[in-house]
Amino acid sequence: MSEIERVGVSLDKKLLGKFDEHAHKQGYSNRSEAIRDLIRERLSQEQLTRPNAKAVAGIFLVYDHHSSTLTTKLMHLQHNHLLHIIASTHIHLDHHNCLEIITVKGKVKEIQMLADKITCLKGVNICQTNMISTDE
Amino acid sequence: MSEIERVGVSLDKKLLGKFDEHAHKQGYSNRSEAIRDLIRERLSQEQLTRPNAKAVAGIFLVYDHHSSTLTTKLMHLQHNHLLHIIASTHIHLDHHNCLEIITVKGKVKEIQMLADKITCLKGVNICQTNMISTDE
Amino acid sequence: MSEIERVGVSLDKKLLGKFDEHAHKQGYSNRSEAIRDLIRERLSQEQLTRPNAKAVAGIFLVYDHHSSTLTTKLMHLQHNHLLHIIASTHIHLDHHNCLEIITVKGKVKEIQMLADKITCLKGVNICQTNMISTDE
Amino acid sequence: MSEIERVGVSLDKKLLGKFDEHAHKQGYSNRSEAIRDLIRERLSQEQLTRPNAKAVAGIFLVYDHHSSTLTTKLMHLQHNHLLHIIASTHIHLDHHNCLEIITVKGKVKEIQMLADKITCLKGVNICQTNMISTDE
Repeated sequence: MSEIERVGVSLDKKLLGKFDEHAHKQGYSNRSEAIRDLIRERLSQEQLTRPNAKAVAGIFLVYDHHSSTLTTKLMHLQHNHLLHIIASTHIHLDHHNCLEIITVKGKVKEIQMLADKITCLKGVNICQTNMISTDE
Repeated sequence: MSEIERVGVSLDKKLLGKFDEHAHKQGYSNRSEAIRDLIRERLSQEQLTRPNAKAVAGIFLVYDHHSSTLTTKLMHLQHNHLLHIIASTHIHLDHHNCLEIITVKGKVKEIQMLADKITCLKGVNICQTNMISTDE
Repeated sequence: MSEIERVGVSLDKKLLGKFDEHAHKQGYSNRSEAIRDLIRERLSQEQLTRPNAKAVAGIFLVYDHHSSTLTTKLMHLQHNHLLHIIASTHIHLDHHNCLEIITVKGKVKEIQMLADKITCLKGVNICQTNMISTDE
Repeated sequence: MSEIERVGVSLDKKLLGKFDEHAHKQGYSNRSEAIRDLIRERLSQEQLTRPNAKAVAGIFLVYDHHSSTLTTKLMHLQHNHLLHIIASTHIHLDHHNCLEIITVKGKVKEIQMLADKITCLKGVNICQTNMISTDE
């Protein structure tokens, strides 16, 4: 990334002590990095509240692969949303259950709509979406 | 609060610009205050993951006050947890529904237990808990 | 509430067993009540994603009452949003810190705006909002 | 999955109407399936509060691939946690940023620990974890 700026932050000593302890325990070697991560996280969360913000997401679905028509329907859904799908990873959890992670790119509202449709499919037991803002 | 310390944080210029814009939009007049709030929030969240941390909480319940035995049961529950209850505010939402906010102090796990018991009462339609860490 | 309808739900036996165990552990004496609560919770969450939905909320703020101008500013903010404020409860947490719970009624976006303004005030250390949908 | 049981749930007519509308809008063709999903989601969430529960997770990290030593450190971290890593998917977001989704299996607390370590690495801009319970 581009230029770096150094800014000063005034903090109550006790609050600073507690934050340093927390950051150290989590594994940070550097206080600046811990504060930068708080800032990035907040900005990303804020972006994701806007339906038109651009995002990349992983849609996680657990389904029973014995469910006869589900795989066809899933394939069909993905092809109708062809533009956004980047990749998909398939993992065998146990004899019945598969985990599939579908990675998609698009607007927040479009990703949510695809995730909703997948959630509703019979045979899909769990569907969770993890989104990250990619807006500049 | 006690002593103030001034620390330096290095930030990518673009990231800083976006954060300043976000903080300004939310209403902060001061960048330090926005960063302090991020830090306080994170520390409070972290505390609340510990079952034995001390907290203060508002338990919000919406219930139908026509439900004949509920008020007695609620009173009973509160008296059995007598030590923690600080205050309770009662609000008439409409003809049927009341909102009651019960403010309690105690360990995270004890507050959760009381909230769970209230949630399960027949006649309680919604029960939500908002906790704030009071640990030093 | 009005009329009751009885509906049938088909469930895998193992899933039902796990849910019964979970509901029992939380304190439910009745499976129907546990399922009703899941449904109410989901509907309330869904409502709260709409900026114009009506809601009632508790805004929790922890502040240092030694902060000289804060109480005036808080009073000022509340009076400028006069229509929505229903009640406010004040609790002494320790020598420095007060908890105030401001109960407000209004549209989701208006409540959020007031909460944002309070969060940004210098002297307010923690500000959290708990909202409940009141839409019919 | 094994045997199916049919259970009856008593619901206020108005509440049922709102839920049917919500489920239909989300895309469910079947009310039972919508209720089953609520139950599965609740059970999965409850499992994930236990540090020793088994889970599968996607750890999402966005990082700058120009960051010279990061890829080595990431590789190192993954090899030290060798047993749990199932797969990893790499996606080019833009000229600077990569998204990597590391899929891991293990106990909730172990996954959290690995995610914390990755979050703290300099060069990792965003790190989010999506967990799904796999406990029986």
